Amino acid sequence: MKYFIDQLQQKIEEKDSRICVGLDPHLNLLPEKVLAAELLEDLEANQKEIAAAVLTFNKNIIDAVADMTAVVKPQMAFYEKLGIPGMETLWQTMAYAKTKDLIVLLDGKRNDIGSTAGAYAEAYLENKKTEIDSITINPYLGSDGILPFLRNKERGAFALLRTSNPSAVELQDLKLADGRTVYQAVGDFLRDLGSDYLGECGYSNLAAVVGATYPKELKEIRAQLDSVFFLIPGFGAQGGGASDIKAGFDSYGRGAVVNSSRGINFAYRKEEYAHFGADNYAKAARAAAEKMKKEINEVLR
Amino acid sequence: MKYFIDQLQQKIEEKDSRICVGLDPHLNLLPEKVLAAELLEDLEANQKEIAAAVLTFNKNIIDAVADMTAVVKPQMAFYEKLGIPGMETLWQTMAYAKTKDLIVLLDGKRNDIGSTAGAYAEAYLENKKTEIDSITINPYLGSDGILPFLRNKERGAFALLRTSNPSAVELQDLKLADGRTVYQAVGDFLRDLGSDYLGECGYSNLAAVVGATYPKELKEIRAQLDSVFFLIPGFGAQGGGASDIKAGFDSYGRGAVVNSSRGINFAYRKEEYAHFGADNYAKAARAAAEKMKKEINEVLR
Repeated sequence: MKYFIDQLQQKIEEKDSRICVGLDPHLNLLPEKVLAAELLEDLEANQKEIAAAVLTFNKNIIDAVADMTAVVKPQMAFYEKLGIPGMETLWQTMAYAKTKDLIVLLDGKRNDIGSTAGAYAEAYLENKKTEIDSITINPYLGSDGILPFLRNKERGAFALLRTSNPSAVELQDLKLADGRTVYQAVGDFLRDLGSDYLGECGYSNLAAVVGATYPKELKEIRAQLDSVFFLIPGFGAQGGGASDIKAGFDSYGRGAVVNSSRGINFAYRKEEYAHFGADNYAKAARAAAEKMKKEINEVLR
Repeated sequence: MKYFIDQLQQKIEEKDSRICVGLDPHLNLLPEKVLAAELLEDLEANQKEIAAAVLTFNKNIIDAVADMTAVVKPQMAFYEKLGIPGMETLWQTMAYAKTKDLIVLLDGKRNDIGSTAGAYAEAYLENKKTEIDSITINPYLGSDGILPFLRNKERGAFALLRTSNPSAVELQDLKLADGRTVYQAVGDFLRDLGSDYLGECGYSNLAAVVGATYPKELKEIRAQLDSVFFLIPGFGAQGGGASDIKAGFDSYGRGAVVNSSRGINFAYRKEEYAHFGADNYAKAARAAAEKMKKEINEVLR
């Protein structure tokens, strides 16, 4: 039995890559060749065809980046939006990623009271049919809503700590009477709760989500939480750059992965990669993933 | 166009009922006649049969309580746990509830950054095939994660404010520098954000979840937030009673619904309703719903 966090850290080192490739199929960004625009005129009537197109797209992206990343992260909302066919595509995408020996981080930000959190854990982390390695969760309900996600030590959970969106500040930055902010208190709470789930690498199966768009906070939180592994979203489309995320890693360049979704999936739409052409979207994605991987390794050197 | 919150308030008054019937199919509590226990020995292999049993159970519960409640609230985790067949049962359950003219509150506690929250809103509140009236959400990401759920004014969102679980206190009760607790700050935040979405009844399409298990807090929060409608969970199985929830209503007995899931669905397992027998689980559920409805109306008189 190997702890989730040790599996993750090992795969990162094998591939020498600290990126996480988000699989967020924004339908209006898919190449016309994959998804005919007219299908989007009636999303509900065409769920099946659209979901099939998304699966094709995802498989090609996975093939293109599989040797370049340790982790892929499908964002559930984009699949749930396509109803039952969308959920089928989600499960098939995750199963396909596993055939490529990738770690799957399911981005669902699930949360509920203990007995219900347990049902979510059964749904995603304790099943045998498809190995979903880890899931994102929301910590607002406290420990009894989090611990069920840690029952299976071969799987892990990433709890929101400081998110990457502009309005993150509204609640997460409120000042507590003891001088900490809410997100710092969430950080201490996650570190303490996760201390019973430490892998050999020194990090815990209870990881955290800390946005790249707030570099000052990222640096502080890294210093505060030396046993908490970070998923750092917000790179690329949301505005974070390689130098912004350096502070999220420990001094050995460990302890974090940086996610990019749109920046990799839809690289073919950017001027930099436009020469590939829309038909070669997967090659453009590979080039973008490779560049991101190198940029991060570079700032950590 | 009628605001969600006005539709809800009207239905509550028509039925003279302030209850919400949770549809949380705890598999090990289903009657043997509906679900053969041996199917549970391999949940993943038998997803289809189990999901079919849940649908039968739900339809019978809905038939039994339809004239006794304005709202039903399926808890997504219990359906997601059954994979694709479970999601089919969820959608079929919601469609069936709509044929009975019930308001559907989908309990998924979804949350994400703005563009992704928008995808969840499209998935559940902006579709035409099945009318899902409202959804529960988690407010931790702030306004840009909440506003997409309010785009369709005929639909509503219930944001977590103070949850009913024992560990709710861990983060929600932290003291802020300004003297408020985190949950009070969340309350003020939700009230302000929801003030642009007020229905004719004076309440907002942005409602809140406030547990019945903390009556003191419920009273305070009601006084603080006079335009925020409450979903009050935690009645029954989690320990809240009718006198505990009185404080969640305004002086006209408006502004809240009280949820019970296990206490109604599985009433046949309680001594009080055991005389119905397991085969008459729906009659037992009806009796429990009727009792709860009356008890609440009684304390509000």
